[in-house]
Amino acid sequence: MSGTNKPTAIDFYFDFSSSYTYIGLPRIEAMAARHRRPLVWKPVSLGAIFKERGHSPPDRNTSKGRYLYLDVLRCAAEQQLPFNIPNPFPFNSIAAARGFLWLQSQSSGQALDFAHRVFDHAFATGGDVTQAQTLAEIAGRCGADAVAFAEGIQLPAIKTQLIELTTEASQRGVFGAPTLICDGEMFWGADRIDQMDRWLSP
Amino acid sequence: MSGTNKPTAIDFYFDFSSSYTYIGLPRIEAMAARHRRPLVWKPVSLGAIFKERGHSPPDRNTSKGRYLYLDVLRCAAEQQLPFNIPNPFPFNSIAAARGFLWLQSQSSGQALDFAHRVFDHAFATGGDVTQAQTLAEIAGRCGADAVAFAEGIQLPAIKTQLIELTTEASQRGVFGAPTLICDGEMFWGADRIDQMDRWLSP
Repeated sequence: MSGTNKPTAIDFYFDFSSSYTYIGLPRIEAMAARHRRPLVWKPVSLGAIFKERGHSPPDRNTSKGRYLYLDVLRCAAEQQLPFNIPNPFPFNSIAAARGFLWLQSQSSGQALDFAHRVFDHAFATGGDVTQAQTLAEIAGRCGADAVAFAEGIQLPAIKTQLIELTTEASQRGVFGAPTLICDGEMFWGADRIDQMDRWLSP
Repeated sequence: MSGTNKPTAIDFYFDFSSSYTYIGLPRIEAMAARHRRPLVWKPVSLGAIFKERGHSPPDRNTSKGRYLYLDVLRCAAEQQLPFNIPNPFPFNSIAAARGFLWLQSQSSGQALDFAHRVFDHAFATGGDVTQAQTLAEIAGRCGADAVAFAEGIQLPAIKTQLIELTTEASQRGVFGAPTLICDGEMFWGADRIDQMDRWLSP
Protein backbone atom coordinates (compact mmCIF):
# COMPACT_ATOMS: atom_id res chain seq x y z
CA MET A 1 0.00 0.00 0.00
CA SER A 2 2.95 2.33 0.53
CA GLY A 3 3.78 2.72 -3.12
CA THR A 4 7.49 2.37 -2.45
CA ASN A 5 9.72 -0.58 -3.13
CA LYS A 6 10.57 -0.92 0.53
CA PRO A 7 7.44 -1.88 2.46
CA THR A 8 7.01 -0.22 5.82
CA ALA A 9 7.10 -2.39 8.88
CA ILE A 10 4.18 -3.58 10.97
CA ASP A 11 4.41 -2.34 14.54
CA PHE A 12 3.16 -5.11 16.80
CA TYR A 13 2.19 -3.92 20.29
CA PHE A 14 1.58 -6.75 22.70
CA ASP A 15 1.52 -7.74 26.33
CA PHE A 16 2.59 -11.21 27.43
CA SER A 17 -0.56 -11.43 29.54
CA SER A 18 -2.86 -11.02 26.52
CA SER A 19 -4.64 -14.26 25.66
CA TYR A 20 -5.84 -12.89 22.33
CA THR A 21 -2.24 -12.07 21.39
CA TYR A 22 -1.35 -15.73 21.98
CA ILE A 23 -4.32 -16.75 19.83
CA GLY A 24 -3.53 -14.30 17.06
CA LEU A 25 0.24 -14.73 16.99
CA PRO A 26 0.52 -17.46 14.32
CA ARG A 27 -1.69 -15.47 11.95
CA ILE A 28 0.08 -12.19 12.73
CA GLU A 29 3.46 -13.70 11.84
CA ALA A 30 2.08 -15.44 8.76
CA MET A 31 0.47 -12.20 7.57
CA ALA A 32 3.65 -10.19 7.98
CA ALA A 33 5.65 -12.85 6.17
CA ARG A 34 3.11 -13.08 3.33
CA HIS A 35 3.26 -9.34 2.72
CA ARG A 36 7.03 -9.23 3.31
CA ARG A 37 6.57 -6.67 6.05
CA PRO A 38 9.06 -6.63 8.90
CA LEU A 39 7.21 -7.32 12.16
CA VAL A 40 8.47 -5.04 14.91
CA TRP A 41 7.70 -6.64 18.26
CA LYS A 42 6.90 -3.99 20.87
CA PRO A 43 6.08 -5.25 24.35
CA VAL A 44 4.09 -2.83 26.46
CA SER A 45 2.57 -2.76 29.90
CA LEU A 46 -1.16 -2.89 29.20
CA GLY A 47 -1.69 -2.65 32.93
CA ALA A 48 -0.11 0.82 32.89
CA ILE A 49 -2.25 1.86 29.90
CA PHE A 50 -5.39 0.52 31.57
CA LYS A 51 -4.51 2.38 34.75
CA GLU A 52 -3.94 5.62 32.84
CA ARG A 53 -7.33 5.28 31.16
CA GLY A 54 -9.27 3.98 34.11
CA HIS A 55 -9.89 0.62 32.38
CA SER A 56 -9.65 -2.71 34.09
CA PRO A 57 -9.07 -6.19 32.70
CA PRO A 58 -12.22 -8.30 32.26
CA ASP A 59 -13.47 -9.57 35.61
CA ARG A 60 -14.31 -13.28 35.53
CA ASN A 61 -17.15 -12.57 37.96
CA THR A 62 -19.09 -10.50 35.43
CA SER A 63 -21.18 -11.60 32.45
CA LYS A 64 -18.67 -10.07 30.06
CA GLY A 65 -15.71 -11.64 31.82
CA ARG A 66 -17.33 -15.09 31.79
CA TYR A 67 -18.27 -14.70 28.13
CA LEU A 68 -14.78 -13.59 27.13
CA TYR A 69 -13.30 -16.65 28.81
CA LEU A 70 -15.59 -18.88 26.72
CA ASP A 71 -14.74 -16.82 23.65
CA VAL A 72 -11.03 -17.31 24.19
CA LEU A 73 -11.55 -21.08 24.49
CA ARG A 74 -13.62 -21.19 21.29
CA CYS A 75 -11.15 -19.01 19.37
CA ALA A 76 -8.21 -21.13 20.49
CA ALA A 77 -10.04 -24.30 19.47
CA GLU A 78 -10.85 -22.83 16.05
CA GLN A 79 -7.18 -22.00 15.54
CA GLN A 80 -6.29 -25.51 16.76
CA LEU A 81 -4.13 -24.03 19.48
CA PRO A 82 -3.74 -25.73 22.85
CA PHE A 83 -5.12 -23.48 25.56
CA ASN A 84 -4.97 -23.51 29.30
CA ILE A 85 -5.65 -20.48 31.39
CA PRO A 86 -2.44 -19.34 33.10
CA ASN A 87 -2.15 -19.52 36.84
CA PRO A 88 -2.32 -16.78 38.03
CA PHE A 89 -4.50 -14.86 35.57
CA PRO A 90 -4.53 -11.99 34.88
CA PHE A 91 -0.84 -11.83 35.66
CA ASN A 92 1.96 -9.30 35.91
CA SER A 93 3.90 -9.43 32.64
CA ILE A 94 6.49 -6.77 33.44
CA ALA A 95 9.38 -9.18 34.04
CA ALA A 96 8.59 -11.11 30.84
CA ALA A 97 8.50 -7.89 28.83
CA ARG A 98 11.80 -6.73 30.28
CA GLY A 99 13.28 -10.14 29.56
CA PHE A 100 12.20 -9.89 25.94
CA LEU A 101 13.76 -6.42 25.62
CA TRP A 102 17.02 -7.49 27.21
CA LEU A 103 17.27 -10.52 24.92
CA GLN A 104 16.48 -8.29 21.95
CA SER A 105 19.50 -6.19 22.87
CA GLN A 106 21.61 -9.36 22.67
CA SER A 107 20.05 -11.46 19.90
CA SER A 108 16.81 -10.85 18.04
CA GLY A 109 16.53 -14.56 17.29
CA GLN A 110 16.73 -15.49 20.97
CA ALA A 111 14.20 -12.77 21.79
CA LEU A 112 11.66 -14.18 19.31
CA ASP A 113 12.24 -17.71 20.55
CA PHE A 114 11.76 -16.46 24.12
CA ALA A 115 8.52 -14.67 23.22
CA HIS A 116 7.01 -17.82 21.71
CA ARG A 117 8.11 -19.92 24.65
CA VAL A 118 6.69 -17.44 27.18
CA PHE A 119 3.33 -17.27 25.40
CA ASP A 120 3.23 -21.07 25.15
CA HIS A 121 4.25 -21.59 28.77
CA ALA A 122 1.51 -19.20 29.89
CA PHE A 123 -1.37 -20.05 27.56
CA ALA A 124 -0.64 -23.48 26.07
CA THR A 125 0.38 -25.13 29.32
CA GLY A 126 -1.26 -22.72 31.79
CA GLY A 127 2.00 -21.94 33.53
CA ASP A 128 3.23 -19.05 35.61
CA VAL A 129 5.50 -16.61 33.76
CA THR A 130 5.62 -13.93 36.42
CA GLN A 131 8.76 -15.20 38.17
CA ALA A 132 12.27 -14.16 37.18
CA GLN A 133 13.52 -17.69 37.88
CA THR A 134 11.05 -19.27 35.43
CA LEU A 135 11.82 -16.64 32.81
CA ALA A 136 15.57 -17.15 33.20
CA GLU A 137 15.07 -20.88 32.65
CA ILE A 138 13.08 -20.17 29.50
CA ALA A 139 15.79 -17.75 28.33
CA GLY A 140 18.35 -20.46 28.99
CA ARG A 141 16.46 -22.83 26.71
CA CYS A 142 16.74 -20.15 24.01
CA GLY A 143 20.51 -20.24 24.34
CA ALA A 144 20.89 -17.19 26.57
CA ASP A 145 22.96 -17.03 29.73
CA ALA A 146 20.38 -17.39 32.50
CA VAL A 147 22.48 -15.44 35.02
CA ALA A 148 23.07 -12.56 32.61
CA PHE A 149 19.35 -12.62 31.83
CA ALA A 150 18.40 -12.31 35.50
CA GLU A 151 20.72 -9.31 35.78
CA GLY A 152 19.58 -7.87 32.45
CA ILE A 153 15.93 -7.57 33.41
CA GLN A 154 16.98 -5.36 36.33
CA LEU A 155 18.93 -2.88 34.19
CA PRO A 156 17.60 0.67 34.38
CA ALA A 157 17.93 1.03 30.59
CA ILE A 158 15.66 -1.99 30.06
CA LYS A 159 13.10 -0.72 32.56
CA THR A 160 13.16 2.66 30.84
CA GLN A 161 12.73 1.06 27.41
CA LEU A 162 9.52 -0.69 28.51
CA ILE A 163 8.17 2.56 29.93
CA GLU A 164 9.02 4.37 26.69
CA LEU A 165 7.38 1.73 24.52
CA THR A 166 4.28 1.87 26.69
CA THR A 167 4.19 5.67 26.41
CA GLU A 168 4.69 5.46 22.64
CA ALA A 169 1.84 2.95 22.36
CA SER A 170 -0.48 5.04 24.47
CA GLN A 171 0.32 8.16 22.44
CA ARG A 172 -0.48 6.28 19.23
CA GLY A 173 -3.86 5.27 20.64
CA VAL A 174 -3.14 1.70 21.70
CA PHE A 175 -5.60 0.55 24.37
CA GLY A 176 -5.49 -3.25 24.06
CA ALA A 177 -3.56 -6.14 22.53
CA PRO A 178 -2.70 -7.31 20.01
CA THR A 179 -2.54 -3.98 18.21
CA LEU A 180 -0.95 -3.73 14.78
CA ILE A 181 -0.09 -0.45 13.07
CA CYS A 182 1.15 -0.18 9.50
CA ASP A 183 1.30 2.88 7.29
CA GLY A 184 -0.69 4.76 9.94
CA GLU A 185 -3.58 2.26 9.97
CA MET A 186 -4.31 0.57 13.28
CA PHE A 187 -5.95 -2.80 13.83
CA TRP A 188 -6.82 -4.11 17.28
CA GLY A 189 -7.63 -7.66 18.19
CA ALA A 190 -7.09 -11.22 17.03
CA ASP A 191 -10.38 -10.85 15.15
CA ARG A 192 -9.08 -8.07 12.90
CA ILE A 193 -5.98 -9.83 11.56
CA ASP A 194 -7.81 -11.12 8.49
CA GLN A 195 -9.12 -7.62 7.83
CA MET A 196 -5.62 -6.16 8.05
CA ASP A 197 -4.43 -8.94 5.75
CA ARG A 198 -6.98 -7.86 3.13
CA TRP A 199 -6.10 -4.19 3.73
CA LEU A 200 -2.42 -4.99 3.04
CA SER A 201 -3.27 -6.90 -0.11
CA PRO A 202 -2.76 -4.99 -3.36
CA MET B 1 -26.51 -29.40 16.86
CA SER B 2 -29.66 -30.19 18.81
CA GLY B 3 -30.04 -33.69 17.43
CA THR B 4 -33.78 -33.28 17.02
CA ASN B 5 -35.75 -32.87 13.84
CA LYS B 6 -37.03 -29.50 14.93
CA PRO B 7 -34.12 -27.09 15.20
CA THR B 8 -34.21 -24.71 18.11
CA ALA B 9 -34.49 -21.02 17.41
CA ILE B 10 -31.74 -18.43 17.55
CA ASP B 11 -32.48 -15.73 20.11
CA PHE B 12 -31.29 -12.43 18.67
CA TYR B 13 -30.83 -9.71 21.30
CA PHE B 14 -30.30 -6.29 19.80
CA ASP B 15 -30.58 -2.58 20.38
CA PHE B 16 -31.52 -0.21 17.58
CA SER B 17 -28.64 2.03 18.61
CA SER B 18 -26.04 -0.70 18.00
CA SER B 19 -23.95 0.01 14.91
CA TYR B 20 -22.46 -3.47 14.94
CA THR B 21 -25.97 -4.95 14.87
CA TYR B 22 -26.65 -2.95 11.70
CA ILE B 23 -23.38 -4.24 10.25
CA GLY B 24 -24.03 -7.84 11.24
CA LEU B 25 -27.72 -8.00 10.38
CA PRO B 26 -27.49 -9.29 6.79
CA ARG B 27 -25.17 -12.09 7.87
CA ILE B 28 -27.26 -12.91 10.95
CA GLU B 29 -30.38 -13.32 8.84
CA ALA B 30 -28.54 -15.29 6.16
CA MET B 31 -27.04 -17.61 8.77
CA ALA B 32 -30.40 -18.33 10.41
CA ALA B 33 -31.97 -18.98 7.01
CA ARG B 34 -29.12 -21.24 5.92
CA HIS B 35 -29.45 -23.38 9.04
CA ARG B 36 -33.27 -23.19 8.95
CA ARG B 37 -33.31 -21.75 12.43
CA PRO B 38 -36.11 -19.38 13.36
CA LEU B 39 -34.61 -16.01 14.30
CA VAL B 40 -36.35 -14.57 17.34
CA TRP B 41 -35.84 -10.80 17.36
CA LYS B 42 -35.55 -9.51 20.93
CA PRO B 43 -35.05 -5.77 21.31
CA VAL B 44 -33.52 -4.72 24.60
CA SER B 45 -32.39 -1.53 26.25
CA LEU B 46 -28.61 -1.83 26.28
CA GLY B 47 -28.56 1.50 28.08
CA ALA B 48 -30.35 -0.13 31.01
CA ILE B 49 -27.97 -3.10 30.97
CA PHE B 50 -24.92 -0.80 30.80
CA LYS B 51 -26.30 1.24 33.68
CA GLU B 52 -26.90 -1.90 35.76
CA ARG B 53 -23.32 -3.02 35.15
CA GLY B 54 -21.63 0.34 35.42
CA HIS B 55 -20.58 0.23 31.74
CA SER B 56 -20.77 3.16 29.40
CA PRO B 57 -20.92 3.30 25.61
CA PRO B 58 -17.60 4.04 23.90
CA ASP B 59 -16.66 7.69 24.27
CA ARG B 60 -15.53 9.25 21.00
CA ASN B 61 -13.06 11.36 22.95
CA THR B 62 -11.01 8.35 24.02
CA SER B 63 -8.51 6.28 22.03
CA LYS B 64 -10.83 3.29 22.15
CA GLY B 65 -13.85 5.33 21.11
CA ARG B 66 -12.00 6.85 18.16
CA TYR B 67 -10.68 3.46 17.11
CA LEU B 68 -14.10 1.82 17.32
CA TYR B 69 -15.53 4.51 15.07
CA LEU B 70 -12.86 3.73 12.46
CA ASP B 71 -13.49 0.02 12.96
CA VAL B 72 -17.21 0.44 12.29
CA LEU B 73 -16.45 2.33 9.07
CA ARG B 74 -14.02 -0.36 7.91
CA CYS B 75 -16.40 -3.20 8.81
CA ALA B 76 -19.29 -1.52 6.99
CA ALA B 77 -17.12 -0.97 3.93
CA GLU B 78 -16.04 -4.61 3.94
CA GLN B 79 -19.67 -5.70 4.06
CA GLN B 80 -20.45 -3.20 1.28
CA LEU B 81 -23.01 -1.52 3.50
CA PRO B 82 -23.65 2.22 3.29
CA PHE B 83 -22.75 3.83 6.60
CA ASN B 84 -23.32 7.23 8.10
CA ILE B 85 -23.12 7.89 11.79
CA PRO B 86 -26.59 8.71 13.14
CA ASN B 87 -27.29 12.15 14.47
CA PRO B 88 -27.49 12.08 17.48
CA PHE B 89 -25.18 9.22 18.43
CA PRO B 90 -25.27 7.39 20.75
CA PHE B 91 -29.04 7.76 20.81
CA ASN B 92 -32.02 6.70 22.87
CA SER B 93 -33.55 3.66 21.19
CA ILE B 94 -36.41 3.07 23.61
CA ALA B 95 -39.18 4.41 21.34
CA ALA B 96 -37.88 2.39 18.37
CA ALA B 97 -37.78 -0.78 20.48
CA ARG B 98 -41.31 -0.21 21.75
CA GLY B 99 -42.44 0.47 18.18
CA PHE B 100 -40.97 -2.82 17.06
CA LEU B 101 -42.72 -4.68 19.89
CA TRP B 102 -46.08 -3.04 19.21
CA LEU B 103 -45.81 -3.86 15.48
CA GLN B 104 -44.85 -7.42 16.37
CA SER B 105 -48.11 -7.71 18.30
CA GLN B 106 -49.93 -6.71 15.10
CA SER B 107 -47.91 -8.22 12.26
CA SER B 108 -44.55 -9.92 12.41
CA GLY B 109 -43.91 -9.01 8.78
CA GLN B 110 -44.46 -5.32 9.43
CA ALA B 111 -42.25 -5.51 12.52
CA LEU B 112 -39.36 -6.98 10.52
CA ASP B 113 -39.81 -4.41 7.76
CA PHE B 114 -39.82 -1.68 10.41
CA ALA B 115 -36.65 -3.01 12.04
CA HIS B 116 -34.75 -2.94 8.75
CA ARG B 117 -36.01 0.53 7.92
CA VAL B 118 -35.08 1.88 11.36
CA PHE B 119 -31.56 0.45 11.17
CA ASP B 120 -31.16 1.83 7.65
CA HIS B 121 -32.55 5.25 8.54
CA ALA B 122 -30.15 5.46 11.48
CA PHE B 123 -26.97 3.92 10.09
CA ALA B 124 -27.26 3.95 6.30
CA THR B 125 -28.54 7.53 6.02
CA GLY B 126 -27.36 8.86 9.40
CA GLY B 127 -30.87 9.86 10.45
CA ASP B 128 -32.53 10.44 13.79
CA VAL B 129 -34.75 7.57 14.96
CA THR B 130 -35.38 8.83 18.47
CA GLN B 131 -38.58 10.74 17.67
CA ALA B 132 -42.03 9.14 17.80
CA GLN B 133 -43.09 11.16 14.73
CA THR B 134 -40.24 9.77 12.60
CA LEU B 135 -40.90 6.24 13.82
CA ALA B 136 -44.62 6.54 13.07
CA GLU B 137 -43.78 7.64 9.52
CA ILE B 138 -41.49 4.65 9.12
CA ALA B 139 -44.23 2.38 10.50
CA GLY B 140 -46.64 3.93 8.01
CA ARG B 141 -44.33 2.99 5.16
CA CYS B 142 -44.46 -0.58 6.47
CA GLY B 143 -48.24 -0.53 6.07
CA ALA B 144 -49.10 0.15 9.70
CA ASP B 145 -51.55 2.80 10.91
CA ALA B 146 -49.30 5.66 12.02
CA VAL B 147 -51.80 6.96 14.57
CA ALA B 148 -52.32 3.54 16.12
CA PHE B 149 -48.53 3.13 16.19
CA ALA B 150 -48.05 6.39 18.08
CA GLU B 151 -50.58 5.21 20.65
CA GLY B 152 -49.18 1.68 20.70
CA ILE B 153 -45.71 2.69 21.80
CA GLN B 154 -47.23 4.32 24.88
CA LEU B 155 -49.10 1.20 26.02
CA PRO B 156 -48.06 -0.02 29.48
CA ALA B 157 -47.97 -3.62 28.20
CA ILE B 158 -45.45 -2.67 25.50
CA LYS B 159 -43.29 -0.76 27.97
CA THR B 160 -43.39 -3.74 30.31
CA GLN B 161 -42.46 -6.13 27.51
CA LEU B 162 -39.28 -4.16 26.74
CA ILE B 163 -38.33 -4.15 30.42
CA GLU B 164 -38.93 -7.90 30.64
CA LEU B 165 -36.87 -8.63 27.53
CA THR B 166 -34.05 -6.50 28.92
CA THR B 167 -34.20 -8.34 32.25
CA GLU B 168 -34.26 -11.69 30.44
CA ALA B 169 -31.22 -10.68 28.39
CA SER B 170 -29.32 -9.48 31.42
CA GLN B 171 -30.12 -12.67 33.31
CA ARG B 172 -28.82 -14.74 30.39
CA GLY B 173 -25.54 -12.79 30.46
CA VAL B 174 -26.12 -10.40 27.57
CA PHE B 175 -23.90 -7.31 27.92
CA GLY B 176 -23.71 -6.01 24.33
CA ALA B 177 -25.25 -6.30 20.88
CA PRO B 178 -25.70 -8.14 18.69
CA THR B 179 -25.89 -11.20 20.93
CA LEU B 180 -27.09 -14.53 19.55
CA ILE B 181 -27.98 -17.52 21.72
CA CYS B 182 -28.81 -20.95 20.34
CA ASP B 183 -28.94 -24.26 22.21
CA GLY B 184 -27.40 -22.50 25.22
CA GLU B 185 -24.37 -21.20 23.30
CA MET B 186 -23.90 -17.45 23.23
CA PHE B 187 -22.09 -15.41 20.59
CA TRP B 188 -21.52 -11.67 20.93
CA GLY B 189 -20.58 -9.29 18.18
CA ALA B 190 -20.74 -8.89 14.44
CA ASP B 191 -17.29 -10.49 14.36
CA ARG B 192 -18.51 -13.79 15.80
CA ILE B 193 -21.30 -14.52 13.31
CA ASP B 194 -19.04 -16.60 11.08
CA GLN B 195 -17.91 -18.55 14.14
CA MET B 196 -21.52 -19.24 15.13
CA ASP B 197 -22.22 -20.24 11.54
CA ARG B 198 -19.47 -22.85 11.74
CA TRP B 199 -20.69 -23.94 15.18
CA LEU B 200 -24.19 -24.51 13.77
CA SER B 201 -22.85 -26.48 10.84
CA PRO B 202 -23.13 -30.25 11.17
